[in-house]
Amino acid sequence: MINTIEWVNGEVKIIDQTQLPQKLEYIYCKDVETLREAISSLKVRGAPALGIAGAFGVVLGTQNSSARDYADFKKEIETLINYLGSSRPTAVNLFWSLKRMKEYAEKNKNKKIEEIKTILKKEAFKIIQEDKICNRRIGKIGASLLEDGETILTHCNAGALATADYGTALGIIYKAKEEGKRIKVYVDETRPLLQGARLTTWELLQEGIEIILICDNMAGEVMREKKIDKVLVGADRVAANGDTANKIGTYTLAVLAKENDIPFYVACPFSSIDLSLPSGKAIPIEQRDSAEVTEGLGKRIAPTGIKVYNPAFDITPAKYITAIITEKGIFRPPFFKRSV
Amino acid sequence: MINTIEWVNGEVKIIDQTQLPQKLEYIYCKDVETLREAISSLKVRGAPALGIAGAFGVVLGTQNSSARDYADFKKEIETLINYLGSSRPTAVNLFWSLKRMKEYAEKNKNKKIEEIKTILKKEAFKIIQEDKICNRRIGKIGASLLEDGETILTHCNAGALATADYGTALGIIYKAKEEGKRIKVYVDETRPLLQGARLTTWELLQEGIEIILICDNMAGEVMREKKIDKVLVGADRVAANGDTANKIGTYTLAVLAKENDIPFYVACPFSSIDLSLPSGKAIPIEQRDSAEVTEGLGKRIAPTGIKVYNPAFDITPAKYITAIITEKGIFRPPFFKRSV
Repeated sequence: MINTIEWVNGEVKIIDQTQLPQKLEYIYCKDVETLREAISSLKVRGAPALGIAGAFGVVLGTQNSSARDYADFKKEIETLINYLGSSRPTAVNLFWSLKRMKEYAEKNKNKKIEEIKTILKKEAFKIIQEDKICNRRIGKIGASLLEDGETILTHCNAGALATADYGTALGIIYKAKEEGKRIKVYVDETRPLLQGARLTTWELLQEGIEIILICDNMAGEVMREKKIDKVLVGADRVAANGDTANKIGTYTLAVLAKENDIPFYVACPFSSIDLSLPSGKAIPIEQRDSAEVTEGLGKRIAPTGIKVYNPAFDITPAKYITAIITEKGIFRPPFFKRSV
Repeated sequence: MINTIEWVNGEVKIIDQTQLPQKLEYIYCKDVETLREAISSLKVRGAPALGIAGAFGVVLGTQNSSARDYADFKKEIETLINYLGSSRPTAVNLFWSLKRMKEYAEKNKNKKIEEIKTILKKEAFKIIQEDKICNRRIGKIGASLLEDGETILTHCNAGALATADYGTALGIIYKAKEEGKRIKVYVDETRPLLQGARLTTWELLQEGIEIILICDNMAGEVMREKKIDKVLVGADRVAANGDTANKIGTYTLAVLAKENDIPFYVACPFSSIDLSLPSGKAIPIEQRDSAEVTEGLGKRIAPTGIKVYNPAFDITPAKYITAIITEKGIFRPPFFKRSV
């Protein structure tokens, strides 16, 4: 498997996913500004990978800190967290890991600053290690839902490129394949930024999975023609009632799946579940630049000055979701208990 | 209004729609080969416009005929019809107009060849004239369904660029505007060839209609957010039971509209209704080249050698359709009586 994001010699090394599938290029983030730009421009993306990026961002931003006492160090961390947290609002994992890093510093506040730095770095490594284990568990648990010979439809990229490695939704497919099941995958291209066409196809081809690429608006017809046995997607944030924010187009797939009696599964780490939210109504939806739609494909495709609506995510109400697959097990309606 | 297709000095003059919205360029088809290529490559497209192109194609192909008798002339027409008819299989209007031209020649078989040529040319002009009248009628009839202040979602291009002028679905919007109703339109970009982003936006902007461009996979979320009052699309072929073939993605919109209690309207000339077919199952769906998906946007967006499914149309079962608007009136379930 590929290493989507890792810590190498005091820098965050990430695959520049905007260059795929043409080029496998890495960028090295030496400072927090470069990392934040990489997050904003989707060079690194995917809810679990954003969690890792956040943790590494805290390490990157504090490793050269000259704070003399914990009060100063804490201020630096808080500034960092606000700065990194404002990069992308929807995926909860980013906030989850930033909070975890802050709490871990707080827990060790009586130690020397240099010691806290080392502790934070260890914690970031722990997050990446946990994500790897988590993905394997999701894969194993989810693979039990797939049968030999089935055809899966997926959207966007919930694979190794969205996580430390292996992936969530795609991890389930990898595991099913490891178990000897023959699985075919229809891949939505996922406009506007084409994570399906560029990233998921690239990943699945590397793993020798049979794939068929379609435009997003073909998913309905493909389901109507009874080509799809199951729909399997990732998630950026899940509310306690099961309402799920995921890449724009997911809601449409869920409605189409229901209409065609096809099970609709969401796969994500438990850290994507935001138990503080009763429903999806409270999940902020990131609105992105209109140029992603009008110019994101190499040439201008619409008249200039045109008004565009470009939500990066949508909310799939829980009623359309058959089950949510996490490392803690398979959750079915009514899904989760609220924490507050 | 623009002239999408017309007869000028012995040539078929068409807007090269593959150049829009960047350039408004015309091409002049001096021979049937050029016209057929223009049809295949979607330089001219839209079911009603294809009907006109077919009629002009018969004129173009026979105007220099040196046939000595009707038997020879008839053979030439039949060869022409097979040649033109094989260009695009789904839209019925092409076959309808080719058949009409052939029958009209047959009706006048006792006349001199030169006279028949003149008669066929007149018939082609009649078809274009009828289409113009038809569109205005569809506009007037359909506009009665739209209320002041409503927001419409449309897909692909069922406008002036798909017809002789004015359009079917978009004609209804133009007429509603003429009646003083304020109508806002969400336009699906319509992958893979982006007829929505390129053509519908261009047309609607010229007519001063307020528009918002979205990617196809955003239509669901836009409906869920209650931004849409009605969905209005064209049709390439409608079976007697109301099952409708239209640009890929239409079925998805119809399912989403039903799920969100939004009326779903189809607008088309009565010549798009194929009463010989009991249901949509018998409508052939054109499969197009994979490069439209992987390279159609100015740069390669997927790994090379990838398998692609690229149906140009889908079938929307009649149960999702609120009404079909034609120049002969508004039809509701159970829609039409079969002719055979």
